[in-house]
Amino acid sequence: MILTVDIGNTRIKGAVFEGNTQIDTFFFIEKDFQKKIKNILKTHQKITDLVVASVGDVEKESFLEFKKDVNVHFISHEDPFPFFNDYETPKTLGIDRMVLAAGAAFQFPKQNKLVIDAGTCVTFDFIDDKNRYHGGAIAPGLRLRYQSLHNFTAKLPLLTLESPKDVIGKSTSDSIHSGVVNGLVYEIDGFIDEYRSRYLNFIIILTGGDADFLAKRLKNTIFANSNFLLESLNQTFQYKIKND
Amino acid sequence: MILTVDIGNTRIKGAVFEGNTQIDTFFFIEKDFQKKIKNILKTHQKITDLVVASVGDVEKESFLEFKKDVNVHFISHEDPFPFFNDYETPKTLGIDRMVLAAGAAFQFPKQNKLVIDAGTCVTFDFIDDKNRYHGGAIAPGLRLRYQSLHNFTAKLPLLTLESPKDVIGKSTSDSIHSGVVNGLVYEIDGFIDEYRSRYLNFIIILTGGDADFLAKRLKNTIFANSNFLLESLNQTFQYKIKND
Repeated sequence: MILTVDIGNTRIKGAVFEGNTQIDTFFFIEKDFQKKIKNILKTHQKITDLVVASVGDVEKESFLEFKKDVNVHFISHEDPFPFFNDYETPKTLGIDRMVLAAGAAFQFPKQNKLVIDAGTCVTFDFIDDKNRYHGGAIAPGLRLRYQSLHNFTAKLPLLTLESPKDVIGKSTSDSIHSGVVNGLVYEIDGFIDEYRSRYLNFIIILTGGDADFLAKRLKNTIFANSNFLLESLNQTFQYKIKND
Repeated sequence: MILTVDIGNTRIKGAVFEGNTQIDTFFFIEKDFQKKIKNILKTHQKITDLVVASVGDVEKESFLEFKKDVNVHFISHEDPFPFFNDYETPKTLGIDRMVLAAGAAFQFPKQNKLVIDAGTCVTFDFIDDKNRYHGGAIAPGLRLRYQSLHNFTAKLPLLTLESPKDVIGKSTSDSIHSGVVNGLVYEIDGFIDEYRSRYLNFIIILTGGDADFLAKRLKNTIFANSNFLLESLNQTFQYKIKND
């Protein structure tokens, strides 16, 4: 069994896999994630490998203590990936985006695919039907937008995510919810429309913490799977074992 | 002559008007704006009134020293405005949005109007053809998006505004430029399209520091005027004198 851990900018998420079947998922907070991983390893004693993808601030050293119980792997740019990387600066391509592109290539090898990861940031990544990774875009996610409106202005309040009542907000709070949520929805639909003007067919994979919240608001039909990154991490690791 | 001063979240801007004719404009930095205003009052000795609209952090006291030379007015919610305010929380409607709505009502009294102010924040405000103010939306502006991507993530760089090479960014920088600039462009077009589905006809006024940069990228045709707020401030003041 494999424990995959995704260290993002805001949160840490994990899942236990037996082959391709996900049997458990977890959210960690940075402060006690080591304790929590210890518990998971105790609960699932058949775990042999701990596979980590990190774009966050957690030190590799924090995982050393698990080496006595399991093999610890940090997915890096040196690992084999199932796509041709056409990025001009492949070393700066976030490991989360690498893993997402890998997952898309594993699951939909013969199709064009657009992966949208809506978390702290919203990333767009395009991989074509020959599994060539083209690149994409990075924009602030929902919570970043709320935070920046408060942090960088003198008078706007800090709000938490809420469904906007309407496009036309009739109070400061409603205006902010509309600007943040409707704004990002229009933005995602706009990116999808632009890709549609270039590629006749492609599959859209929407993942990340805000995937479900956003999916039902988009005019485009998409395949939402908030666990896509952890599934992809499991597959990337299995691919690594086969190809190393 | 009137000197209008707009204190935003990021910058301070001013313009001198003779009647409705703008004869000079200025950008200030907070540190030396008092010195600069003194110079303007020296250069344009016919200035009788200094009219200020502020959503920023500058204290009213900073303007007291000019009272010996000119009349100083701070536009506030108590002043008369040429529209009916249908906002549920009129006291929290930013004075900049009030002045913009006033300007729209003065210049296009018989039309529906959508005012988009692209500065630190991007605000949307809708005033109908009966000059009823409906409300709108508030989203982060271009620079806030760049800043938040850097400030709230572990690894993304702080970039300054640049035209994206393409929708599909092929490096981290290109991905960020695409996500920020194309993202906001899609967002503004998305809001406009939504308004268009509700109102057959309306005029769109795009203003703020990023108006010219954004105008040429929007698919919708708009009327861009980066000085609209200062013009509106001048008109709001003249309206106040007539109606007080």
